[in-house]
Amino acid sequence: MERIAVRTRVTRISLDGGARTAQDVVTAEEPLEIRVGGRSLAVTMRTPGHDVELAAGFLVSEGVVAHAEHVAAARYCAGRDDDGRNTYNVLDVTLGAGVPAPDPSLERSFYTTSSCGLCGKASVDAVRTQSHWAVADDDLAVTDAFLASLPDRLRDGQAVFERTGGLHAAALFDDAGRLLVLREDVGRHNAVDKVVGWALTQGVLPLRGTVLMVSGRASFELTQKALMAGIPLLAAVSAPSSLAVELARDAGITLVGFLRGTSMVVYARPDRVVVSSGASDDVRTARVTAS
Amino acid sequence: MERIAVRTRVTRISLDGGARTAQDVVTAEEPLEIRVGGRSLAVTMRTPGHDVELAAGFLVSEGVVAHAEHVAAARYCAGRDDDGRNTYNVLDVTLGAGVPAPDPSLERSFYTTSSCGLCGKASVDAVRTQSHWAVADDDLAVTDAFLASLPDRLRDGQAVFERTGGLHAAALFDDAGRLLVLREDVGRHNAVDKVVGWALTQGVLPLRGTVLMVSGRASFELTQKALMAGIPLLAAVSAPSSLAVELARDAGITLVGFLRGTSMVVYARPDRVVVSSGASDDVRTARVTAS
Repeated sequence: MERIAVRTRVTRISLDGGARTAQDVVTAEEPLEIRVGGRSLAVTMRTPGHDVELAAGFLVSEGVVAHAEHVAAARYCAGRDDDGRNTYNVLDVTLGAGVPAPDPSLERSFYTTSSCGLCGKASVDAVRTQSHWAVADDDLAVTDAFLASLPDRLRDGQAVFERTGGLHAAALFDDAGRLLVLREDVGRHNAVDKVVGWALTQGVLPLRGTVLMVSGRASFELTQKALMAGIPLLAAVSAPSSLAVELARDAGITLVGFLRGTSMVVYARPDRVVVSSGASDDVRTARVTAS
Repeated sequence: MERIAVRTRVTRISLDGGARTAQDVVTAEEPLEIRVGGRSLAVTMRTPGHDVELAAGFLVSEGVVAHAEHVAAARYCAGRDDDGRNTYNVLDVTLGAGVPAPDPSLERSFYTTSSCGLCGKASVDAVRTQSHWAVADDDLAVTDAFLASLPDRLRDGQAVFERTGGLHAAALFDDAGRLLVLREDVGRHNAVDKVVGWALTQGVLPLRGTVLMVSGRASFELTQKALMAGIPLLAAVSAPSSLAVELARDAGITLVGFLRGTSMVVYARPDRVVVSSGASDDVRTARVTAS
């Protein structure tokens, strides 16, 4: 409890009811330093829990590892805070034999080209080049009704959100609709990394035939993580960005957004979504906009 | 238009109405490489627009600059994409005379201590040490009714959100309730950096007597940005994290969360919020939780 949610004293105010102090619970956020072979690689602000999965998933997303045997060990450093307690905030990953250590400048060099003309297309190309596998699953087919059920199933699985209202979630389903894993975090990229890291440790990468559901928006970064894990379908409660759409189309990922109630919008590879009723090819312009 | 929102072909599906293809608009996301004196410092995925403010605000947040004269110039590099167009995605900032260039390892070293015992407290201390000024404004007083009006005012000002449903926003108000500036971005940290960068270029840092309203949650990172800009009150539509609360209390920032409808929760420095009716000191335990 203490590591995932933190009790704190607050003042609740309502315009018609005045103010009162109360005990409340907020989502825990703590830094996690990810080290590889003793060298610091990144610090992420995360909700403690499933840290080994988070580190493993981060390394998958960055193209450092792709199979379970690529990670030999992970251990918390024996650091102590001022009160002499282990902080459990520094995790050192030992790579498997023959796995090259990541470039420490990895994060910055990832998107940055030597030329001065950085563009979205270059980012898409960089991710495509780095991916260990292409997204396959041309015959994957899920129904719109199944997709429409995912937001409620995601929310039902969010144990901590219920208490704090402050977490993102990511959940992985197989094509028979079974929930494989669900993870929560203050950072949505961390929630996805935890899911992908779980898959790595289970030895089930690439994640063929699966659907990844996320609680927020679909950014380029989340679409990149789906690609690096070989996930063929990414569904989000909210809007995608232009670069998420571009990467999904380029990589062959089905991208579903605005998945709410009984409707959704498919931005890439709609052929994997089976429409259950009233299908039509009626082409209409829903939002006419000036250019 | 083209740079902020992008038109794209989508498939709209509703369970009772079937599928149809349509023209839609998504929020633009493009990489921005921030250079200082020709050296690459960071790449952020952002919505194009107000890039100079974004870069300036990023440098304020990182403790590199604090006054308008600390930034001498900012220019887009003359790079070209495959079609020969300037990408406007690489911005080179020239620092003012005597301003030290940032450490290129800045981002990672910021939270990382040499010891193995990284903890939230160390992150809070690091930010406090780096801030150019303390938050003052002990006599700032805003009413709960004013705070309750902010979410609607934020939404009313979001021009792009209306079209795409896909942007975060940050807005700055003075203590008389006037909107000073509002910025939108796919990344909420970018939206805040754009606001802070606006303040730097206007020569109005530190932002004494102001209220920063954000569309999402209040993370440690956003609270850090408020502190680095000297903002005494941060209000968010959604939940704060534990470390955001800790930093706000330590730095003397009033932190308001769950600002929805007619109610809100104050997590730090509630003395700056004037309760308009029915004030009471009745202490109650709102959510009893096991530890």
